[in-house]
Amino acid sequence: MNTTTEAAVQLAVAAWHSQNKRMDTLLSSLTDEQLMKEIAPGKNRGIYLLGHLTAVSDGILPLLNLGQRLYPQLDDAFIKNPDKSDLPMPTISELKEYWNTVNKTLSNHFAAMQYNQWLDKHTAVSAEDFEKEPHRNKLNLLLNRTNHQSYHMGQLALLK
Amino acid sequence: MNTTTEAAVQLAVAAWHSQNKRMDTLLSSLTDEQLMKEIAPGKNRGIYLLGHLTAVSDGILPLLNLGQRLYPQLDDAFIKNPDKSDLPMPTISELKEYWNTVNKTLSNHFAAMQYNQWLDKHTAVSAEDFEKEPHRNKLNLLLNRTNHQSYHMGQLALLK
Repeated sequence: MNTTTEAAVQLAVAAWHSQNKRMDTLLSSLTDEQLMKEIAPGKNRGIYLLGHLTAVSDGILPLLNLGQRLYPQLDDAFIKNPDKSDLPMPTISELKEYWNTVNKTLSNHFAAMQYNQWLDKHTAVSAEDFEKEPHRNKLNLLLNRTNHQSYHMGQLALLK
Repeated sequence: MNTTTEAAVQLAVAAWHSQNKRMDTLLSSLTDEQLMKEIAPGKNRGIYLLGHLTAVSDGILPLLNLGQRLYPQLDDAFIKNPDKSDLPMPTISELKEYWNTVNKTLSNHFAAMQYNQWLDKHTAVSAEDFEKEPHRNKLNLLLNRTNHQSYHMGQLALLK
């Protein structure tokens, strides 16, 4: 593992942190009332996207073999079902707390990871499949999750 | 430059291609009439975001030292000014053609690039600054542009 690999991995992790920082700034610019609104008529509400992004980030923990989910109870309302399904949801202030805790937990794990670990397989791919598809590694999963977060941040920004 | 660096760089380039493919699918699912609508009341129209993403991707050419802009004339209506500024715009079918040409041109250049070139500085950073901030390289610019595109794709998807 040489320094150029370290540099490439570092960039992807830095991009993840940078998107989280932008999300924190965006969240602090929105009131609870704004977050209860739909991003566009008939579309998801801000609270749903906040819960969705928190649940998806929380899911990175087991996928990267970093530990158990912190808030698996979010899946019903924010991943398995669409918004406005009449399911109980945490408050916005609770969701913001979960969001911060998930990101802090991931940050600590990422800081302790060795560069070469990022090119290991993630846990949702079998050893056999990984041999055929070596791109299905932890770094790729992080790149995908970063883009997924950007996608929904573009929507949340419409609430401003 | 070893194979792990190649792997890390390849993932970032693959993520770029994958976002473009998603954008192509999204574009082909939207009618011209839908693209003329605002993504949410009072916000940017689809046509503006299509022109904006095309102009920003076109701007990657000089930034990565791959050649001149193909459509610098897009900047006025799609980068320097907000939507609904009463500036002349190409038609949606022209913009889609530009979009395809820009992406094809970038793809050809990316395919010809050596892995180590991605860790060189991009053209918007001086040699002195790059020595102090070595992360301001071509790969980082690509990661940022990929996330920028995801951000606006999340908005364009609201037109469906």
